[in-house]
Amino acid sequence: MVLIQTPGNMNEYCYTNLYRNNDKQSFKKKSKMLERFKADQNEIVFVDSKSLEKISKEILVKEGMRPSFAASVSEALLAADIRGADTHGASNLIQPYVDWIRNKKTNPDPILKKVQDFAAIANFDADNGLVTGFGKEAMNIAIGKAKKFGVGVVTIKNAGHSGAIGVHAMHAVEKDMIGMVMTAVNPIVVPTFGAEQRLGTNPIAVAAPANNEADFLFDVATSTIAGGKAKLAELAGNKLGPYTIAELNGEPIKDDVFLPDMKFEDILFLPFGGSRESGSHKGYGFAMVAEIMSGILSGCESLMINNTRNDPRGALNSHFFAAFNIAAFGDVEKFKTNMDQMLKKLKETKPSPGNKRVIYPGLLEREEEIFRIKNGIPIHKNLVEWLDSLSKQYGIEKIHRKVGTNR
Amino acid sequence: MVLIQTPGNMNEYCYTNLYRNNDKQSFKKKSKMLERFKADQNEIVFVDSKSLEKISKEILVKEGMRPSFAASVSEALLAADIRGADTHGASNLIQPYVDWIRNKKTNPDPILKKVQDFAAIANFDADNGLVTGFGKEAMNIAIGKAKKFGVGVVTIKNAGHSGAIGVHAMHAVEKDMIGMVMTAVNPIVVPTFGAEQRLGTNPIAVAAPANNEADFLFDVATSTIAGGKAKLAELAGNKLGPYTIAELNGEPIKDDVFLPDMKFEDILFLPFGGSRESGSHKGYGFAMVAEIMSGILSGCESLMINNTRNDPRGALNSHFFAAFNIAAFGDVEKFKTNMDQMLKKLKETKPSPGNKRVIYPGLLEREEEIFRIKNGIPIHKNLVEWLDSLSKQYGIEKIHRKVGTNR
Repeated sequence: MVLIQTPGNMNEYCYTNLYRNNDKQSFKKKSKMLERFKADQNEIVFVDSKSLEKISKEILVKEGMRPSFAASVSEALLAADIRGADTHGASNLIQPYVDWIRNKKTNPDPILKKVQDFAAIANFDADNGLVTGFGKEAMNIAIGKAKKFGVGVVTIKNAGHSGAIGVHAMHAVEKDMIGMVMTAVNPIVVPTFGAEQRLGTNPIAVAAPANNEADFLFDVATSTIAGGKAKLAELAGNKLGPYTIAELNGEPIKDDVFLPDMKFEDILFLPFGGSRESGSHKGYGFAMVAEIMSGILSGCESLMINNTRNDPRGALNSHFFAAFNIAAFGDVEKFKTNMDQMLKKLKETKPSPGNKRVIYPGLLEREEEIFRIKNGIPIHKNLVEWLDSLSKQYGIEKIHRKVGTNR
Repeated sequence: MVLIQTPGNMNEYCYTNLYRNNDKQSFKKKSKMLERFKADQNEIVFVDSKSLEKISKEILVKEGMRPSFAASVSEALLAADIRGADTHGASNLIQPYVDWIRNKKTNPDPILKKVQDFAAIANFDADNGLVTGFGKEAMNIAIGKAKKFGVGVVTIKNAGHSGAIGVHAMHAVEKDMIGMVMTAVNPIVVPTFGAEQRLGTNPIAVAAPANNEADFLFDVATSTIAGGKAKLAELAGNKLGPYTIAELNGEPIKDDVFLPDMKFEDILFLPFGGSRESGSHKGYGFAMVAEIMSGILSGCESLMINNTRNDPRGALNSHFFAAFNIAAFGDVEKFKTNMDQMLKKLKETKPSPGNKRVIYPGLLEREEEIFRIKNGIPIHKNLVEWLDSLSKQYGIEKIHRKVGTNR
């Protein structure tokens, strides 16, 4: 069996493939046979990660994306796939990205345009390009500034989908820095006490380096669950957990419930915490932090004022990237040793009943990475078929299967 | 009646006075007569805010604090009192601060010692002084750097109590900047799946300026509730809400429960979110973010490795301050207009059943500030008696009562 979702995971990701088939209904019928969050092994194919990255890039180029940008997008997608963040990997995003290019909902040849540049900070316009492709560039600019000034901050407006923002935060970690990324997206979340959508699932990610232990990588939506996870539950024919969505009058739904049979964008999602009693005001507040740091700081109206969901150019988002240069604050080796001590102590914490061990954000992702580097990426056979058909159409090399992989 | 706790408040504060009497038991008996979170009007005295700031300063000086530092501490305490954050104001902290000076648990004459200073960042040692007193200085250093570089970051180690960190974040707002403050304190919180204390209630605050609407001020513990709020419930003879604490084996307690009759420091608190199903991994992750940005970045071992609770010098914490200069990113007036639009839209959101209006972090605090500037600060009569006895002992002016104030 392939692990489709790790309930113990500290981040937002799910081990599955959402966009397996454009015909959602036919997939839904199939998925009814699945156990909750587990895919039938016969429906999963393990593919070589390098080959998935290569074919993603080649398809995006054939669809009209410039090669250098297609390479960046594919690199970020694969960085998510390899860590098990399938909802944010090529395995789930290559199909919608192709759709968006075909429907002119993203600019396949965008330029990162400078709006402001002042010492340790900069503000860019993404020209309606995917931040999945601009993330590394933006974080590298922040890293360059952090080398020179100790800290560097980059905001981006008029931007497209960001992919897994933790992937961008990790570029800072590679340079012995702390990375912080936030994103403001179109509203589907109700504020505490409210009955109308006002905030996006606005994710926040922070990554910090360790020496021997898996790096700290925290990456979460500020809603109870990320949008992709809700879609997964629907596709798998399963219910959402308590306090994930609200009734249409804004009342938090306290029980397990199916995603309502209505337009996804019209569903009222709840901020992380669920209701005021259980702390939704904190999820709501963190969502506002992401909105302010990403959107309003980069010069945009809030997305609750200027909803870009139906913008003919595609939904426009905003992003915040920061790099903190550990060497400027003190000794890098000491920092990483202290991180190791802390992370080891957390791992060795006595677990509560029913739990085998204590984990921390980034640990399972690193374990998954080790497994997938060796064994490949599990993707749905429908995606393999789709990739094969495009290979034939475009005359490019077919994706490489990994034979004999199992868990 | 005096509003003691606003269940609708978006932050961590409570409108009450915790440290009204050193004899906790005798107070407990009294408090049994109180309605949940409401104080008997006969027990509350409204005092002039300037007079409370003045007497706080004079007492701290008489107890051995240097006048300039006592002024800073009192200014920060009163900034909390005036906004209704009584748990973090002079009304609750002047008595323990005096205790700590007498028991040598804080250095009354500390110097902010530079450890590192590199362009846009700096790292200090607080010399075991209260960060309540150093907060404005630290934020002002960050603001100065943000003026020059667009962003400024200051970390502080070997530090004492921070007071209300939102107060320090607001100094950035006064200069048209975004302020961000985090604090790492000694562990009382269990990680998700864990049965041992590993993280503090580690608060995070972010403040951002508006024009006509109340400024955004988000200030929350990363545990389900702040420690002070738990103590309040105990003093008032009331139960804690669900998912606030864990059984001694780490199992989250799902029901309303009294604070156990044991040392406060040994109680297992839960990260914000409660259990994994309801999202405790997010509270846990944000607590780690505060630990890393405040403690490990400033050069300390994690407090879960080097617990300073029983340090003869008093508990030592770590702090993070950042200022983001809005003018460096774009137009300040546009930013504040966009903030106004967003905050107004939130206020005007249709409320869900049973709720009169939608609020946002900072709104109730501003409304309380307007009320208290006019009507004074409500403090418990026991605190007034204590202040009067010290006035007599030290030969200083008595605190000014406000006559005729009521809600």
